[in-house]
Amino acid sequence: MVKVGIVGGSGYTGSELLRLLYKHPKAEVVAVTSRKWEGKPVWECHPFLKGFCDLTFVSPEIKNFDGCDIVFTAVPHGEAMKYVPQLLDVGIKVVDLSADYRLQKDVYEKAYGLEHEAYREAVYGLPELHRDEVAKADLVANPGCYPTGCILAAAPLAKAGLIERVVFDSKSGITGAGIKPTEFTHYPNLHEAIVPYKVTNHRHYYEMVQEIGELQDGVKVSFTPQVFPGSRGILTNAHIFLKENVSLEEVRRIYEEFYKDCYFVRMQNMVRLSWVRGSNFCDIAVFAGEDRVVVSSAIDNLVKGASGQAIQNMNIMLGFDEKEGLDFPPLFP
Amino acid sequence: MVKVGIVGGSGYTGSELLRLLYKHPKAEVVAVTSRKWEGKPVWECHPFLKGFCDLTFVSPEIKNFDGCDIVFTAVPHGEAMKYVPQLLDVGIKVVDLSADYRLQKDVYEKAYGLEHEAYREAVYGLPELHRDEVAKADLVANPGCYPTGCILAAAPLAKAGLIERVVFDSKSGITGAGIKPTEFTHYPNLHEAIVPYKVTNHRHYYEMVQEIGELQDGVKVSFTPQVFPGSRGILTNAHIFLKENVSLEEVRRIYEEFYKDCYFVRMQNMVRLSWVRGSNFCDIAVFAGEDRVVVSSAIDNLVKGASGQAIQNMNIMLGFDEKEGLDFPPLFP
Amino acid sequence: MVKVGIVGGSGYTGSELLRLLYKHPKAEVVAVTSRKWEGKPVWECHPFLKGFCDLTFVSPEIKNFDGCDIVFTAVPHGEAMKYVPQLLDVGIKVVDLSADYRLQKDVYEKAYGLEHEAYREAVYGLPELHRDEVAKADLVANPGCYPTGCILAAAPLAKAGLIERVVFDSKSGITGAGIKPTEFTHYPNLHEAIVPYKVTNHRHYYEMVQEIGELQDGVKVSFTPQVFPGSRGILTNAHIFLKENVSLEEVRRIYEEFYKDCYFVRMQNMVRLSWVRGSNFCDIAVFAGEDRVVVSSAIDNLVKGASGQAIQNMNIMLGFDEKEGLDFPPLFP
Amino acid sequence: MVKVGIVGGSGYTGSELLRLLYKHPKAEVVAVTSRKWEGKPVWECHPFLKGFCDLTFVSPEIKNFDGCDIVFTAVPHGEAMKYVPQLLDVGIKVVDLSADYRLQKDVYEKAYGLEHEAYREAVYGLPELHRDEVAKADLVANPGCYPTGCILAAAPLAKAGLIERVVFDSKSGITGAGIKPTEFTHYPNLHEAIVPYKVTNHRHYYEMVQEIGELQDGVKVSFTPQVFPGSRGILTNAHIFLKENVSLEEVRRIYEEFYKDCYFVRMQNMVRLSWVRGSNFCDIAVFAGEDRVVVSSAIDNLVKGASGQAIQNMNIMLGFDEKEGLDFPPLFP
Repeated sequence: MVKVGIVGGSGYTGSELLRLLYKHPKAEVVAVTSRKWEGKPVWECHPFLKGFCDLTFVSPEIKNFDGCDIVFTAVPHGEAMKYVPQLLDVGIKVVDLSADYRLQKDVYEKAYGLEHEAYREAVYGLPELHRDEVAKADLVANPGCYPTGCILAAAPLAKAGLIERVVFDSKSGITGAGIKPTEFTHYPNLHEAIVPYKVTNHRHYYEMVQEIGELQDGVKVSFTPQVFPGSRGILTNAHIFLKENVSLEEVRRIYEEFYKDCYFVRMQNMVRLSWVRGSNFCDIAVFAGEDRVVVSSAIDNLVKGASGQAIQNMNIMLGFDEKEGLDFPPLFP
Repeated sequence: MVKVGIVGGSGYTGSELLRLLYKHPKAEVVAVTSRKWEGKPVWECHPFLKGFCDLTFVSPEIKNFDGCDIVFTAVPHGEAMKYVPQLLDVGIKVVDLSADYRLQKDVYEKAYGLEHEAYREAVYGLPELHRDEVAKADLVANPGCYPTGCILAAAPLAKAGLIERVVFDSKSGITGAGIKPTEFTHYPNLHEAIVPYKVTNHRHYYEMVQEIGELQDGVKVSFTPQVFPGSRGILTNAHIFLKENVSLEEVRRIYEEFYKDCYFVRMQNMVRLSWVRGSNFCDIAVFAGEDRVVVSSAIDNLVKGASGQAIQNMNIMLGFDEKEGLDFPPLFP
Repeated sequence: MVKVGIVGGSGYTGSELLRLLYKHPKAEVVAVTSRKWEGKPVWECHPFLKGFCDLTFVSPEIKNFDGCDIVFTAVPHGEAMKYVPQLLDVGIKVVDLSADYRLQKDVYEKAYGLEHEAYREAVYGLPELHRDEVAKADLVANPGCYPTGCILAAAPLAKAGLIERVVFDSKSGITGAGIKPTEFTHYPNLHEAIVPYKVTNHRHYYEMVQEIGELQDGVKVSFTPQVFPGSRGILTNAHIFLKENVSLEEVRRIYEEFYKDCYFVRMQNMVRLSWVRGSNFCDIAVFAGEDRVVVSSAIDNLVKGASGQAIQNMNIMLGFDEKEGLDFPPLFP
Repeated sequence: MVKVGIVGGSGYTGSELLRLLYKHPKAEVVAVTSRKWEGKPVWECHPFLKGFCDLTFVSPEIKNFDGCDIVFTAVPHGEAMKYVPQLLDVGIKVVDLSADYRLQKDVYEKAYGLEHEAYREAVYGLPELHRDEVAKADLVANPGCYPTGCILAAAPLAKAGLIERVVFDSKSGITGAGIKPTEFTHYPNLHEAIVPYKVTNHRHYYEMVQEIGELQDGVKVSFTPQVFPGSRGILTNAHIFLKENVSLEEVRRIYEEFYKDCYFVRMQNMVRLSWVRGSNFCDIAVFAGEDRVVVSSAIDNLVKGASGQAIQNMNIMLGFDEKEGLDFPPLFP
């Protein structure tokens, strides 16, 4: 069993790592941190884990990860950079769930409005695009939740060089906003609502530009996020306008071919968030009319959009089958 | 047009007063306070009112209510008592939406754990029980949201002296918890949930005991509140155990008779929150099996459970028809 | 008081007409039909209207509308055409809430896949675009719910001749699918879901093309509808790509100018479905980045998207102020 | 690997059996029936299982279960009795998820209003009460969803002989009503709603009376069910009135003692449906005031309330650890 540490165990991505790793056949969580809950049993913070986790929260000092093979940093951007270099320097592999290592330094600093004082080279951990590099990496930057669903929806057509313009219109469950109550997460503000926010300037946009740009030069990318009344899930419509007419059959063939070795991407006739809930799948459906293609993708934002993908990355980094611990059906309905 | 003031206009009961009073044919809001929004237009705080309200928030000083015939105090308990006596002393009638004047002084101090420094006699403003007293009152204590639905569900059988024990199991929309974000109102904590809280010790219990006790001596009363995933509405099941067997027909007759002059209580075959939403109605349905009667009541917690009932009380206090400004259908579905 | 009839009173748009017309100061419903409920009181079918409507459902024969000044047809497409010509022929004005008279005959027949046996010229009843023609019309085709929100979101920029391409991504509450239970409206299929459907081939598309095409030649229009977990409301993101760069300030000015005499369109800084719920408003917010503009619009699909707009049309057709009976605040939250 | 069959695989309990059994280390589904989907791949009916199940639906003939060690009957009451005796007669063990074998024959016929033509003795499969009998049974009647949560909430105090009266007020997710669309499951009828139904005469009541009656004579039992806006979960408040005063500490001790060997019952300080979602746990919290105890219990109606408990019973019947295949954390939030 490899030894796993978690920096930031009291939030949603932290508890999701604990949920998923409990059933991992080759990994074991040995240290989990929380400043706020330090010294308290994990299940007091996460009562749903009662009976599953007898760890006690520790402080996020490096020595508390002695003996760990790999550590997940599940803290906000700006925070992760305080731990990642230290962990790497003592020889511990890292999967960072924050945004701190996903972008080029200058792009990051512009997008997040802060200076990056601890920059390191990292692999962008979308295994469907970068599996081989992830396998060799010591530091993997786990993608943002929106970019995961958006990039996977457009990648095959970008790889084929066919996209003129893509408009991503995404709807996320509210856990994406974190565990801390705010006006944004106040129940009456979400009930019977669809709430667009950061309509033209969400920071996840830069990841989409970076990754789609690597596949095809000059694609025009737009992105608008919103939240819907639910806890989990991201549904993205990628409205894609092509450089030339392509038949629906051909588009589908391109997707089937691109994802033929990708266990966690399933081509479906339509997508439903309830068909991926709780699982690491990204379901994709393709629709078309003439020079326009609409691709819908569905993920669970806390699994394929965060902690599940992080474990998938861990599996690849450590030479395991990428499915280890993630090979179970979604919770429907 | 009578002149109306509102102390506390930035919360849900305040905005609901504004929504309802806009269409009142005989009353006009002339002053509305908010410390936080002082000096700003009301619609900036409440964009849904854009075009309906050109007032500017003022501070809650007594002089700002000069010329008012009546004032609603829509601030938390403990706060209202700072304004009510001053308003009364300058000859302004008051409907207090807080808990400060609903209970006897000693009961209040025990229930709310604070000393009442400005106690006055008030009428408990449940018009279906106290219409005549309300008509003569200068200070009306507007009932709590839970007590409104609970007391109306049990009153006819209590009046008939038939109740041995009543168990109120109530489910409220989350606006009852106010406009301020908390862990309790955090969306993921409410989604797909029923959350019992203060299971055996909610403070609204004392209002139920007081009012049912006035109707029948010695009734055993229990109350358990919970929230459901919705913004508005309180659904109460009153599980009533009788002193003697009464037929369902007779029970229904008792309710029809008791409420025959009460426009805002409608006897239905079943109740649905969507049949009262946005309106001042309390719908009631009666079910029975042998010595047990189940009475379900449905209200909109912000209307009959708060601001609508407050306006109903105002109408009665000022000699208007109690329906003025409240005589419109619910918003279904 | 003008006399009003309703063909099809048992569905959601029918009950919404009844709800709204109850408070109309100049109109009175005198006949409402339902084959299924014929001979039964309206409130038995719609218990939320108990106390508000003592009409009895009648059959949809023309003679039952004797004496009516105007009739609303609130039945499915293909059904409305059975009544509309007969009503017009006896001199009764008609607002048709179905799709039967919204499109040119040939476009209609292609889009709806049926022969139109009773075609008449009608005015497309979007008052913000066609107020003067509505005023003179005997037959007004009330717009579809999606087109209302979409067209209003794009019209000012189309009028200015600035649009290259517009992508409408709309999310509707489920009442748009009607009152009849189907797999689509089955609760577990909607819970915590965003469900795209008819992704590239919804029939409302043709209304958008028709109306935007009248304002500007050659605009490329795309439309994808979906449902969100709620009963009421349509939130549309119009992703608009411009022919030339226009500043955000200039875009906003164009919208303010276009809608300056339109009471039911409110420019807001952001839109929320809860800010228009139950009301006839269309709220619009404009966001921009370089050559791309995102316009979000919010309506209540049963009011501005159906029955409220139908009454607005009636008001204009009869020479009333368009606000009569519709001049009340939304139900927030 | 034991061989498992499922009669009725197209509904929610059927798909939940497939979801859970996929990860069972000692059992394998070899036959699953559906008249409607016969001949089609299981994943076409249940797209969320794409990649997990390559079985094809067969018809429910006995020969299709040749070689099975155990069969789950997941069809409606009245249907199950057509298969159960035949299966038993060819030596196949059965867990029946319908109501057909839960009650004494005469009680069943009264409660369900039909003649039982194929009655057999069965063990009531609530393992926390009947583990030893389940271990020896060939036919286990899997408890109803409501009775599971209700009986577990009251059993310890009943065993102690302390209950005078218990009132169960339960709120269920809508999947309990099945996969077939009805007016009851129509989205707008559930949205922002709490819907009481069969308020005093739900058929699950008889299971509660039977099981609580076995533990303590003469307990007065009442039960009122309702649905809340969610897919999964049952939250029950058991309002218990005691024969004598018992301290809260003592009550808690009684529960801790009663459930000390029951892995799937967890004592918590409060209960949340999100803390048990997707899992086989029944969480219980105890609250008290004088002679009244309120016990809240939370289960996932499709797991501990149906398919999970069925697998727990299978494990016990076949001599496995009851946790096999069910030992994973809930899906929070």
